[in-house]
Amino acid sequence: MTRPAHVVIVGAGFGGLAAARALRHVDVDVTIVDRNNYHLFQPLLYQVASGLLDPSAIASPVRTIVRRSRNIDVLRAEVSAVDLGRRRVITSAATLDYDYLVVATGSVTDYFNNDDARRHSTGLKDLSEAIALRSHLLNCFERASLVADAEARERLLTFAVVGAGPTGVEYSGALAELIKHVLPKDYRRVDFGDVSVVLIEAGDRILATFAPRLSRLAARSLRQKGVRIILGTSVRGIDDHGITLDNGDRVEAETVVWTAGVRATTPLDVQGDALARAGRVKVTPELTLAGHPEVFVIGDAAASEQAGAVLPMLAPVAIQGGRYAGKVIAARLKGAGSAPFHYHDKGTMATIGRGAAVAQIGPLKINGLIGWFIWIFIHLLYLVGFRNRALAIWSWAWNYFFWDRPVRLIVAASADIASNAREDPRAARR
Amino acid sequence: MTRPAHVVIVGAGFGGLAAARALRHVDVDVTIVDRNNYHLFQPLLYQVASGLLDPSAIASPVRTIVRRSRNIDVLRAEVSAVDLGRRRVITSAATLDYDYLVVATGSVTDYFNNDDARRHSTGLKDLSEAIALRSHLLNCFERASLVADAEARERLLTFAVVGAGPTGVEYSGALAELIKHVLPKDYRRVDFGDVSVVLIEAGDRILATFAPRLSRLAARSLRQKGVRIILGTSVRGIDDHGITLDNGDRVEAETVVWTAGVRATTPLDVQGDALARAGRVKVTPELTLAGHPEVFVIGDAAASEQAGAVLPMLAPVAIQGGRYAGKVIAARLKGAGSAPFHYHDKGTMATIGRGAAVAQIGPLKINGLIGWFIWIFIHLLYLVGFRNRALAIWSWAWNYFFWDRPVRLIVAASADIASNAREDPRAARR
Repeated sequence: MTRPAHVVIVGAGFGGLAAARALRHVDVDVTIVDRNNYHLFQPLLYQVASGLLDPSAIASPVRTIVRRSRNIDVLRAEVSAVDLGRRRVITSAATLDYDYLVVATGSVTDYFNNDDARRHSTGLKDLSEAIALRSHLLNCFERASLVADAEARERLLTFAVVGAGPTGVEYSGALAELIKHVLPKDYRRVDFGDVSVVLIEAGDRILATFAPRLSRLAARSLRQKGVRIILGTSVRGIDDHGITLDNGDRVEAETVVWTAGVRATTPLDVQGDALARAGRVKVTPELTLAGHPEVFVIGDAAASEQAGAVLPMLAPVAIQGGRYAGKVIAARLKGAGSAPFHYHDKGTMATIGRGAAVAQIGPLKINGLIGWFIWIFIHLLYLVGFRNRALAIWSWAWNYFFWDRPVRLIVAASADIASNAREDPRAARR
Repeated sequence: MTRPAHVVIVGAGFGGLAAARALRHVDVDVTIVDRNNYHLFQPLLYQVASGLLDPSAIASPVRTIVRRSRNIDVLRAEVSAVDLGRRRVITSAATLDYDYLVVATGSVTDYFNNDDARRHSTGLKDLSEAIALRSHLLNCFERASLVADAEARERLLTFAVVGAGPTGVEYSGALAELIKHVLPKDYRRVDFGDVSVVLIEAGDRILATFAPRLSRLAARSLRQKGVRIILGTSVRGIDDHGITLDNGDRVEAETVVWTAGVRATTPLDVQGDALARAGRVKVTPELTLAGHPEVFVIGDAAASEQAGAVLPMLAPVAIQGGRYAGKVIAARLKGAGSAPFHYHDKGTMATIGRGAAVAQIGPLKINGLIGWFIWIFIHLLYLVGFRNRALAIWSWAWNYFFWDRPVRLIVAASADIASNAREDPRAARR
């Protein structure tokens, strides 16, 4: 009896998990490698960063997700390199030989080589950033309630978000609601006239990937919630006290959240022509690396072309890509071929806070409360694990009926950073 | 019109909050100072450390708790000193003048000057320790599933708890259940015959403050759950690889949780004869500092004598002391006197895991399932805030019916410790 083929999947995001699931009844051994022990439901990360959801509501241990599949193993390790010639993945914990490799490593925040931006702002891509941001913004309110100087206070209470893609829009909407409806009850000494959320976008409209009409509606919703939107100017520099814009204007802000771009990240040693925009790896129509049919690259990490355009960095692209890769591997083991990858666009959506969302589903353009309910439905559908779904419903219901954000703890996770965090987590982070 | 008297309460634990509540309809200004922005329901901390509850289920923002009381303000700051002569509290954020001071600063882990114990073990007194412990123990399982050496693996899978008071007993019970019922589903490569929980106690029985019969019953329950109990020998030393006992025996363990003692901590400059055992401040029958009738010391921080014995370090003592201090202040403002503090013992209890607890209520000694239901009832009664109560019920119900521990994330809270945590949080902590 020969050993079954070994499939190594790097990354336990939407793509990696979809690939693993597609292989669970196939005669292969699967190893999922991720640096974290959990799968993160990234589209709701902004809800953790605004204190609506507990981290554990959007994160599930990978081992728990796959524990019913006997052929799937999990390795918590950092992948340092891939040896394409010897078909090996080198990780911090072990070296893995593979017959098939699925690279599903996603993307990281892109500061476009702007080191000041990196140093003086926070991304919103992983759980630790979201938790740190939540603590930081509550800390700003604590400090503002003590500061006598009006300018310093206003700066502490200005929250700037750079980049008006879905993440920037959703986070600034959530922040505006937190500030309008929840925090005034807790911070009675703070003059909420001093508080502002500023959304800065280099393009001429927010949510540029949506239809112009939806952009306009979303912008109107955001403004109604009190968000100031600055369009058509990019960020020249960020320093300790705020942002200098390309048009010379200043936004004085103690908090800058950077959601202006993401960049693919892979452990593959590919450069130059093999890379497309944003560091994404160019792939064949079968989502494989040119010359390496045994190496699949999917999701944000891959630049997959369809009808002349590169597919966007969205969860559904990763999920469909992962499922496709799993099916191709299963077919190949049977000696069968496969049709090229075809992405079915099921639409995109963004929420702007309580009872408002925009959605674009094929020719359909939806907004307002209906959009919001669709958004909730879709998100719950995708949320991994029943417990998470129930907890998320609970939190949403609570928020909807009581205008409350339940999770407002300023907490440090590790004993040895606790003393710093008590001072000022921002200071420690810088 | 004169300004109302200013009451400063240091500490937002059970005692401090009870004092504030007793003053909410009194014509005084109250400031609660705490280094954290949350009140912690400490009796359930071990449930966070064993992954059953989310941190936010046992922690509520102090501001939210008191937000309906217009005369209560909250200051998140570290108290460095109290100037008894000038009636001032010096904090990291501001200096506060007081007319009345309530010191409710609780206690910290006591290592009895054993520096090795401090360095090589984890306490279980605050939220960051509990979160770090949860990550650490999951990490031990991750590492154990990779290690070939049998001795190293067994060491990674041995969890030692030093001190068999309620915290030690409850945590080892919870750990044993986590190991027996939950983790085997996730860690299929781990031989659970290698896993053990060892509870070490210097005295001749566990739960020494309970009746001997209940100690025996609790010990039997723990043993049934697989906990090894070592009695009658204290810890000589702790190092990187385990514990050396006074009788010369070794317990090889990568994880040592220290629950052997606590020590009062106050910002008051009192020494020598003014202190009782465990650093507790001696107080008058009115719970005030001798010579300072305006300074109350309550809860763990105070050594209050009743019927010749010092009251124990328990939440009910702190709550009743806080309520008493608030009432005395209110009475004094009206020129009235007060009877000395009298503590009503409502009983003590400890849980040993699923469906088992011991309780001692006056002459009543209860154990087993009934004890457990009483324990749940009492704890929910005390849990601060409706949301916490509902969330805790949800988690318990889930755990009870599905033998699952929902919160199993290895996560770092702050961006700059994330990279360390990815390696090995234990290494970073040491």
